[in-house]
Amino acid sequence: QGSEDSLGSSLNDSPDRDTCTGYVSMDNLPKYSDVLLQMHSVGICGSDVHYWQHGRIADFVVKDPMVLGHEASGRVVKVGSAVKHLKVGDRVAIEPGVPREMDEYFKTGKYNLSPTIFFCATPPDDGNLCRFYKHNANFCYKLPDNVTFEEGALIEPLSVGIHACQRAGVTLGSTVFICGAGPIGLVCLIVAKALGASQVVITDLFPERLALAKELGADFQLKVTGKVEPKQLAKKAEELLGVQPHVAIECTGVESSIQTAIYATRPGGVVVVVGLGSEMVTLPLINAATREVDIRGVFRYRNTWPMAIAMLASGKVNVKPLVTHRFPLEQAVKAFETTRQGIGIKVMLKCDQEDQNP
Amino acid sequence: QGSEDSLGSSLNDSPDRDTCTGYVSMDNLPKYSDVLLQMHSVGICGSDVHYWQHGRIADFVVKDPMVLGHEASGRVVKVGSAVKHLKVGDRVAIEPGVPREMDEYFKTGKYNLSPTIFFCATPPDDGNLCRFYKHNANFCYKLPDNVTFEEGALIEPLSVGIHACQRAGVTLGSTVFICGAGPIGLVCLIVAKALGASQVVITDLFPERLALAKELGADFQLKVTGKVEPKQLAKKAEELLGVQPHVAIECTGVESSIQTAIYATRPGGVVVVVGLGSEMVTLPLINAATREVDIRGVFRYRNTWPMAIAMLASGKVNVKPLVTHRFPLEQAVKAFETTRQGIGIKVMLKCDQEDQNP
Amino acid sequence: QGSEDSLGSSLNDSPDRDTCTGYVSMDNLPKYSDVLLQMHSVGICGSDVHYWQHGRIADFVVKDPMVLGHEASGRVVKVGSAVKHLKVGDRVAIEPGVPREMDEYFKTGKYNLSPTIFFCATPPDDGNLCRFYKHNANFCYKLPDNVTFEEGALIEPLSVGIHACQRAGVTLGSTVFICGAGPIGLVCLIVAKALGASQVVITDLFPERLALAKELGADFQLKVTGKVEPKQLAKKAEELLGVQPHVAIECTGVESSIQTAIYATRPGGVVVVVGLGSEMVTLPLINAATREVDIRGVFRYRNTWPMAIAMLASGKVNVKPLVTHRFPLEQAVKAFETTRQGIGIKVMLKCDQEDQNP
Amino acid sequence: QGSEDSLGSSLNDSPDRDTCTGYVSMDNLPKYSDVLLQMHSVGICGSDVHYWQHGRIADFVVKDPMVLGHEASGRVVKVGSAVKHLKVGDRVAIEPGVPREMDEYFKTGKYNLSPTIFFCATPPDDGNLCRFYKHNANFCYKLPDNVTFEEGALIEPLSVGIHACQRAGVTLGSTVFICGAGPIGLVCLIVAKALGASQVVITDLFPERLALAKELGADFQLKVTGKVEPKQLAKKAEELLGVQPHVAIECTGVESSIQTAIYATRPGGVVVVVGLGSEMVTLPLINAATREVDIRGVFRYRNTWPMAIAMLASGKVNVKPLVTHRFPLEQAVKAFETTRQGIGIKVMLKCDQEDQNP
Ligand SMILES: NC(=O)c1ccc[n+]([C@@H]2O[C@H](COP(=O)([O-])OP(=O)(O)OC[C@H]3O[C@@H](n4cnc5c(N)ncnc54)[C@H](O)[C@@H]3O)[C@@H](O)[C@H]2O)c1
Ligand SMILES: NC(=O)c1ccc[n+]([C@@H]2O[C@H](COP(=O)([O-])OP(=O)(O)OC[C@H]3O[C@@H](n4cnc5c(N)ncnc54)[C@H](O)[C@@H]3O)[C@@H](O)[C@H]2O)c1
Ligand SMILES: NC(=O)c1ccc[n+]([C@@H]2O[C@H](COP(=O)([O-])OP(=O)(O)OC[C@H]3O[C@@H](n4cnc5c(N)ncnc54)[C@H](O)[C@@H]3O)[C@@H](O)[C@H]2O)c1
Ligand SMILES: NC(=O)c1ccc[n+]([C@@H]2O[C@H](COP(=O)([O-])OP(=O)(O)OC[C@H]3O[C@@H](n4cnc5c(N)ncnc54)[C@H](O)[C@@H]3O)[C@@H](O)[C@H]2O)c1
Ligand SMILES: [Zn+2]
Ligand SMILES: [Zn+2]
Ligand SMILES: [Zn+2]
Ligand SMILES: [Zn+2]
Repeated sequence: QGSEDSLGSSLNDSPDRDTCTGYVSMDNLPKYSDVLLQMHSVGICGSDVHYWQHGRIADFVVKDPMVLGHEASGRVVKVGSAVKHLKVGDRVAIEPGVPREMDEYFKTGKYNLSPTIFFCATPPDDGNLCRFYKHNANFCYKLPDNVTFEEGALIEPLSVGIHACQRAGVTLGSTVFICGAGPIGLVCLIVAKALGASQVVITDLFPERLALAKELGADFQLKVTGKVEPKQLAKKAEELLGVQPHVAIECTGVESSIQTAIYATRPGGVVVVVGLGSEMVTLPLINAATREVDIRGVFRYRNTWPMAIAMLASGKVNVKPLVTHRFPLEQAVKAFETTRQGIGIKVMLKCDQEDQNP
Repeated sequence: QGSEDSLGSSLNDSPDRDTCTGYVSMDNLPKYSDVLLQMHSVGICGSDVHYWQHGRIADFVVKDPMVLGHEASGRVVKVGSAVKHLKVGDRVAIEPGVPREMDEYFKTGKYNLSPTIFFCATPPDDGNLCRFYKHNANFCYKLPDNVTFEEGALIEPLSVGIHACQRAGVTLGSTVFICGAGPIGLVCLIVAKALGASQVVITDLFPERLALAKELGADFQLKVTGKVEPKQLAKKAEELLGVQPHVAIECTGVESSIQTAIYATRPGGVVVVVGLGSEMVTLPLINAATREVDIRGVFRYRNTWPMAIAMLASGKVNVKPLVTHRFPLEQAVKAFETTRQGIGIKVMLKCDQEDQNP
Repeated sequence: QGSEDSLGSSLNDSPDRDTCTGYVSMDNLPKYSDVLLQMHSVGICGSDVHYWQHGRIADFVVKDPMVLGHEASGRVVKVGSAVKHLKVGDRVAIEPGVPREMDEYFKTGKYNLSPTIFFCATPPDDGNLCRFYKHNANFCYKLPDNVTFEEGALIEPLSVGIHACQRAGVTLGSTVFICGAGPIGLVCLIVAKALGASQVVITDLFPERLALAKELGADFQLKVTGKVEPKQLAKKAEELLGVQPHVAIECTGVESSIQTAIYATRPGGVVVVVGLGSEMVTLPLINAATREVDIRGVFRYRNTWPMAIAMLASGKVNVKPLVTHRFPLEQAVKAFETTRQGIGIKVMLKCDQEDQNP
Repeated sequence: QGSEDSLGSSLNDSPDRDTCTGYVSMDNLPKYSDVLLQMHSVGICGSDVHYWQHGRIADFVVKDPMVLGHEASGRVVKVGSAVKHLKVGDRVAIEPGVPREMDEYFKTGKYNLSPTIFFCATPPDDGNLCRFYKHNANFCYKLPDNVTFEEGALIEPLSVGIHACQRAGVTLGSTVFICGAGPIGLVCLIVAKALGASQVVITDLFPERLALAKELGADFQLKVTGKVEPKQLAKKAEELLGVQPHVAIECTGVESSIQTAIYATRPGGVVVVVGLGSEMVTLPLINAATREVDIRGVFRYRNTWPMAIAMLASGKVNVKPLVTHRFPLEQAVKAFETTRQGIGIKVMLKCDQEDQNP
């Protein structure tokens, strides 16, 4: 299967393998704007597992062997001639999306929406779960000494949480309803709290995930069982908070959960759709529209690395508890199995044989 | 039937009938903040016809006889003691929604979302299709001499268009896709053009409506037939404009049309849901979410009368062509029949027997 | 002097004294929308001292004896007939500004800008530094059990900080430059941190104030001496942060400090002007304009009490260290003297003889 | 003098002269992302004249001979290998600012604020008043057939107006106060009207300029004489409009005029500072701050060409009346003299000897 291969090629360790993103459609750009990185820590994401298992997500189909991995950090080992802000030895976090064209999206600061963007481990673009990897230096961010490689790798999922909370407009005193306490729900929780949310209620099917959510600062946990009606669940969230939440952040992709998010949210509020489920979803649209509850999607993130690093460096957010498992790159299959089975939260692959520290 | 009665009571012409909005839950407020108006022109809205025919819309049920009408203008005949900005003889346009409580929505300027708002002809609140009518003076706006009573009445539907275009973020050079060329689609068209939209494409089932849209400034018209797939129709709109529209304003409430609106809109754009159809609607949510196409509802309007009057007075928008029929109040049933049969666009009832001019 | 008198009248303890705000220009409103409060804690503000000493601030002149005080909390002892959300015995924080007219500012949620607003202790409106006080119930907010009266009174200055940080757009990872570590600079610091600011540098003339700022979370302190040039000081702030701040919040009103704020701020950033100094101020306008550094004033606050209470109740902000002195109401003159001499930060007057607790 | 030389070098007509913008700090980029243009029409701007006369503006000093001109359009004669959206023969308008680094400003869509941006005719970067000129193709925009070269060149000043009106938040029904009826004040007027402003009052010292403003749609003109006090002038503007303007756009740079703009603007409104005068300016800051009148600068523009072209193509704005004089490139000195003497509004230089049409 392509899936076996794609995982296999992650083990490629030649510094010559060209995984370059080819920024701004120029062929010889690597010499100019790229850096070559020795990879250190790469987190496994649900989408990695999905490509591995099914060889596709929606219209993105893995046709050729593809390197997986997009939650990553590493150390600079070579620097293109045009690179000014990085030097050999710098520890960096990698933003996996690099726009290829200077289109209207890029020019207006919404480069994540550029249809031709390069993105690690979204076919046909290779990811960075490997020994050495080349990337556009403008999308590599130097880590301060007090931020670990693993924190650097976790900036990728954290960025989803930042972008989601920004799209939601979470602010001082916000009450927030988060659906789903997987890695993404949890980063949304962490960010919402850092932005001043006064109370967060979070749902999940599994008590262990809710328990971790509590540790990370959730004020209320709601265990969801198959039998609860969306309207009832929305009511429960409201009862826990004492008010209807200003904002709901949906991180499961499950239809009934999206419906719950809409019913729960206060008039004039926002439902942010992070979870991605079926193509077509049935929603209580009149309920949303006549209460002006906006429905806003999230596609990855943009411009989040600098603020994430600022938050990590100043100790304002703590993502370390998210890492529950670590494997050396050689045990990649075992690592992927762990994530596939839903064990723990975030599994880290350690790509540097000399340094397997966080 | 309640419907017969509700229409009947519109004919009540006693100046003593108390249709007061009872602002801020104080019983004797009329003497203070209200004005008594001699009604002049009242437009018939689809919702009026619906209450007349079916006695209900969604959860709003007509239980007692109810006066219809909420698109209205009249002349001040009596002034409460606290009213400073109006005097007897002033011609005014009436904003039909008056908040009753100083809740968070009112305090933050989103009074249209206040759950306890008074609203003309939404049960159990009486409307203003009658000879004399009392209303909170703060929601009556003096008309300049060069704005007619009918233009004043048309500010109500125009306000829906203003609020929709503002929620959509229509601005200089916007390309706009409007679904439905009924009265609401047409006011959205007029406002979008006034806000600087460069190109508007509009859809409808009926060629007559599209023809009027063309007269009012639509750059392209798209006749919809039952057979067209949403994705195909979206493609057609794009082809006409040469680009995907920045913004879609849905004014039919029909499921396939809402789907079309989503498919058509450019990444990072906005779909505004004005049309209200079935409670549950199936949508291509992943398509919207991963392209960050926001879905924003519209519930009436807020703070639109002053800017609408400014636009009418300065001649920047022309809503007069919308009025296709006029009837004296005595022929209310005939007038309602006309709207019920979908003949013309806006039917005006003339409530002042001495002055039936526009 | 009027100043003696105005302080004197604060001691008035008759429950019959009518300090009512007379909301929405209706004479008999107290019976409806007001509550009578037994005052508990009232903080002294610089403006109170100024009126006491000079009898005027800018164009606001104390002509008749005036009750001072606007940072206050108390207990409900009587309730108007239209009041639903409060009952006798409730502990409340008082928002001192109550709009009198339903003008465009009020309708659009910017009621603090309404020119005819009632405001406690801004002549000719009486304040609430007294035993009993009547206020519009819509601007009295119930305190949860875990929020003290003094915290309730401190919501007033805290609100200035909230509004300032909101106008500044402080968000996750913001770097913030605060000029002046008086009560207002310190609440801005607290709020900026709660909103996710990663690093705050704060200035003052006095080391004691900077020391408290450090305790409250300031990352860097900058002692200002008369000799430093604005450009040099701006450079120092940049050096401490490692970057130019996204945002500067000016809380001294001193010309050179406002200039410093402009020079320091990053292109595309915001300078918020909270401090009020001389009428005319000389600014490096080209520097600001060509770097699109916005200059935004702050006039008090709007809609901040609910979120402040949410933050206090959830323990997300701690304002208790701001209170450095307490006096019973009988010792008001001594209390005012303390503030006048710039001793400590916030002086609290305790108006309830039975309960002098925080 | 450098000034003579800089003008002289505009006459250079060798297609080999490298005026390339060297985008993204890569030396051999021209072959990839640039286009070579045969210049057609170039407008003369006040800054061009200033460099010619004084050899400097603020800190920008002309040290080496510099080609002037930045309001320009031309025809593509050669295309870099990476250019997809343009082909030989295309008529294009040129956006003169091209960011050189992918810094935070560029990534967030505010590239005009990037400190290292290339900008035509801002030393040391050459402009495009010449026969042939190379430019980054991503900042060249194809003109539709119904938009002339001169309209294309006028997009540059028009963009200043677009950016100013956007920063001001001009929208439906806005009342706008524009100070100065030079080319920049006039484009602000045109754009404000296109965005739905209901009434615009404009000032100038000279009746001829006010007369043209009237032709272009200004509702009121105010002739300024040396003797008028800022507060009085602000009052006059209010009297003409009947209300205080929502927005003031300052296009003179004169201190008293900026003061007037502040006094005139309504609470909660915006003063946009476009005009650039002395380094230090004395302002009524308390007046602005306590009424929350924001002061926002404008530095050129960003992302305005596409919407400007859309507006011109759809006939929604008409900039043609701005061109009052035309000269062949050979008569550049005469053309510059005309602008220097303040004769007419916009002087066009015609660079294509075969085609001197608009
Ligand atoms: N939009 C984006 O850019 C983006 C980025 C990353 C992830 N995602 C999506 O976000 C979602 C969450 O990602 P994740 O990595 O946390 O996935 P996950 O599968 O680990 O977590 C989902 C959680 O939701 C819980 N859940 C399932 N059904 C539920 C229900 N009905 N009610 C409450 N909880 C329920 C599960 O128990 C699980 O803990 C996925 O759909 C993923 O595709 C989107
Ligand atoms: N949200 C609000 O505050 C608000 C306010 C007023 C009206 N509305 C809603 O707006 C909608 C429009 O109001 P109206 O008064 O113009 O109604 P209308 O019925 O007169 O107009 C609807 C138009 O849509 C056309 N149409 C129907 N199906 C279509 C399709 N599949 N594709 C294209 N066009 C189609 C019809 O031919 C008709 O011309 C209604 O649903 C109404 O309830 C909402
Ligand atoms: N805009 C509003 O709505 C609003 C509301 C409240 C207060 N204010 C204003 O905010 C300002 C601060 O209020 P406060 O109660 O904290 O006053 P304060 O006088 O107690 O504090 C001002 C602080 O600034 C310091 N300072 C003075 N000059 C300085 C300089 N050059 N550099 C650095 N620090 C300097 C002082 O040492 C002092 O600690 C006052 O001007 C007040 O009028 C405005
Ligand atoms: N911020 C930017 O990005 C940007 C871009 C272009 C131009 N500008 C600036 O905009 C300003 C206007 O440019 P322009 O090309 O129209 O210049 P201009 O000199 O042709 O026009 C200025 C107009 O203001 C009038 N004026 C002078 N003093 C006045 C007063 N006290 N009251 C009223 N009117 C007065 C003059 O008679 C003249 O008509 C200049 O300062 C220029 O530097 C700024
Ligand atoms: Zn992922
Ligand atoms: Zn209606
Ligand atoms: Zn105060
Ligand atoms: Zn110019």
